[in-house]
Amino acid sequence: MVYLTRVEHFNAAHKLYNPAWDEARNEEVFGKCANQNWHGHNYELYVTVKGDPDPDTGFVFDVKRLSTLIREQVVEKLDHRNLNMDVDFMQGKMCSTENLAIAIWKELQPALPASVQLHCIKLYETPRIYVEYFGE
Amino acid sequence: MVYLTRVEHFNAAHKLYNPAWDEARNEEVFGKCANQNWHGHNYELYVTVKGDPDPDTGFVFDVKRLSTLIREQVVEKLDHRNLNMDVDFMQGKMCSTENLAIAIWKELQPALPASVQLHCIKLYETPRIYVEYFGE
Amino acid sequence: MVYLTRVEHFNAAHKLYNPAWDEARNEEVFGKCANQNWHGHNYELYVTVKGDPDPDTGFVFDVKRLSTLIREQVVEKLDHRNLNMDVDFMQGKMCSTENLAIAIWKELQPALPASVQLHCIKLYETPRIYVEYFGE
Amino acid sequence: MVYLTRVEHFNAAHKLYNPAWDEARNEEVFGKCANQNWHGHNYELYVTVKGDPDPDTGFVFDVKRLSTLIREQVVEKLDHRNLNMDVDFMQGKMCSTENLAIAIWKELQPALPASVQLHCIKLYETPRIYVEYFGE
Amino acid sequence: MVYLTRVEHFNAAHKLYNPAWDEARNEEVFGKCANQNWHGHNYELYVTVKGDPDPDTGFVFDVKRLSTLIREQVVEKLDHRNLNMDVDFMQGKMCSTENLAIAIWKELQPALPASVQLHCIKLYETPRIYVEYFGE
Amino acid sequence: MVYLTRVEHFNAAHKLYNPAWDEARNEEVFGKCANQNWHGHNYELYVTVKGDPDPDTGFVFDVKRLSTLIREQVVEKLDHRNLNMDVDFMQGKMCSTENLAIAIWKELQPALPASVQLHCIKLYETPRIYVEYFGE
Repeated sequence: MVYLTRVEHFNAAHKLYNPAWDEARNEEVFGKCANQNWHGHNYELYVTVKGDPDPDTGFVFDVKRLSTLIREQVVEKLDHRNLNMDVDFMQGKMCSTENLAIAIWKELQPALPASVQLHCIKLYETPRIYVEYFGE
Repeated sequence: MVYLTRVEHFNAAHKLYNPAWDEARNEEVFGKCANQNWHGHNYELYVTVKGDPDPDTGFVFDVKRLSTLIREQVVEKLDHRNLNMDVDFMQGKMCSTENLAIAIWKELQPALPASVQLHCIKLYETPRIYVEYFGE
Repeated sequence: MVYLTRVEHFNAAHKLYNPAWDEARNEEVFGKCANQNWHGHNYELYVTVKGDPDPDTGFVFDVKRLSTLIREQVVEKLDHRNLNMDVDFMQGKMCSTENLAIAIWKELQPALPASVQLHCIKLYETPRIYVEYFGE
Repeated sequence: MVYLTRVEHFNAAHKLYNPAWDEARNEEVFGKCANQNWHGHNYELYVTVKGDPDPDTGFVFDVKRLSTLIREQVVEKLDHRNLNMDVDFMQGKMCSTENLAIAIWKELQPALPASVQLHCIKLYETPRIYVEYFGE
Repeated sequence: MVYLTRVEHFNAAHKLYNPAWDEARNEEVFGKCANQNWHGHNYELYVTVKGDPDPDTGFVFDVKRLSTLIREQVVEKLDHRNLNMDVDFMQGKMCSTENLAIAIWKELQPALPASVQLHCIKLYETPRIYVEYFGE
Repeated sequence: MVYLTRVEHFNAAHKLYNPAWDEARNEEVFGKCANQNWHGHNYELYVTVKGDPDPDTGFVFDVKRLSTLIREQVVEKLDHRNLNMDVDFMQGKMCSTENLAIAIWKELQPALPASVQLHCIKLYETPRIYVEYFGE
């Protein structure tokens, strides 16, 4: 079993704002992240799959195909977007990095072939903050 | 003469959109960067000052004081903001990285003491795109 | 279950020196790290906690609160210090990166709320050397 | 139990080419990586060992000795080499990053003393592609 | 005047070998870099142009167009290639990073529009070795 | 004219403390950097030389020879040392990064052959603070 990771990049606007709360409560809990006019990030997305290397190629999975899948399934829907407004699979959810990582897993997992398993979605929001989700 | 650089960080939303143009022209010129609902970045800001080291301290400039000045003069106005909507010194300007670097120079330069000269504003928009402005 | 990591920074002096040994034995085992007059490092500290995202915030844990906790519990005691001389929780211990990571876990773990579990302390001593401790 | 990681570097030429296939099939599967005249990479090799810190030293393992072992057992055989042509332990194998990581494990594992266990070989082929192998 | 930099990536095989010398002399001068069977690198290419921001766009130059130009003029000819064998503009030259940077300047400069000037080609051969060429 | 840069690493202890001042003044000016028991850093040292590539080698300067010179002339005197106590060429000077960069220039410049000129000493004290010295 070998683990293969591909790193992709997107940038997006978002805010952390719970519509069930008033503005004061949102500012208290989310601070500057609740700014009504949005802020944004350069996200770095690490996708790790695992499997046995194919004897003919030496590959767990063709990394170019993995890159294409990540771009088609998630990056094109997220890059240069507003996470709260523009992304169908984030509707009705808090746009935290935690929830975004879980949603990326759910978008990507069904698109992978049976020969590999999705192992981890790791998502950097800033160079000093990241989350990891292992599907459970 | 020694050059001293301090790196600071902020993240912000913006869009590239010329209000004198219609939407089609904006999309043609700015592509995804013209998304009406904004996108955003983690900006890395490098501020370089130059001067002669003080014999008593060995410092061109106290780097903690430089950090405080950068934060007070520019980062607090930019961090977790919408560059187009929230930042007084970007009003009426295209929010390109080029124009943002020039504007940061103009905000910061008058706040520095006479003992040092501002040498360069270097601003990363993404890890693969940056601009530099030397004041002329 | 989502894993959330916050990266903090401190720099410190230390030496690797076993007082039960003579100088020759210390030099033999620790080489340049045994220099009596100390050396030092920029340490990068990765703290990972795990838990379920709160439905109201989307957070496993408020990352600003995590940052504050790490700074109060450990970084303020370590930053710009001598690990052998100035740090109460390293007294009587060899100041290896391994022992420092274990000690940071012990300082930080009781300060975290019951809603999250401490998962990993990862500590870079140099860009090419790091240790990880998972609490067992 | 503490995990200690040492990062080493080597650069090498290789190609991905299955001699059982004709050129068209190789190009179809491996694309530019099948270029007959080779291409190459700067590889970053992360070797992680685990064990209990020695009470006398605070070390899981002397990191300088670990570095020496990695260099002697694997880096000297790989650095500035052609992976397909020059490396005895890659003969008859596809030179994928996956297979290279497994082969490095097999070269390094027997050379480690009983006091530590090899935990992970992590190998970056480019800054955006890496594999991990845990020995099973 | 603002300086705009775009970073691109390619990887390639090469060797340092002067055909006017015998093998012993090549090994003496170039060491492991003279390995007959090639070695290789992940190159990071920084292209800096300078000019005045356009009032309508805020751009010195459209960075996506700059990226496309770099890829078309140089990266496609270098990526996954053998610098000595496959690259027309390196024929008859020593494939040092110095000569490669000068050659990239010569390929790219005529392709840029009159509105910007090429300022610098910066080329990393490894994370610890890079060259810069300013056209003179 | 091509500029060639080699990056080297050392770590060291130091403090910022002016012996002509009392402790209160030192703490006021230098803050935590005045800690009597020292602190330390991982320094990254960038040495840039410039010259014309040699037609026979394509080199401005043999980068392995440059690395050896840097190590012999400066890194061996600085690595795992106390800058204030152990380094002959820092005696009687404030151990600021500015003064350290100037001193490194003075140590290294006479050791270089006439075929290249020393262009810049760039020295990172932390990942967010660096200085540059160009010899004038």
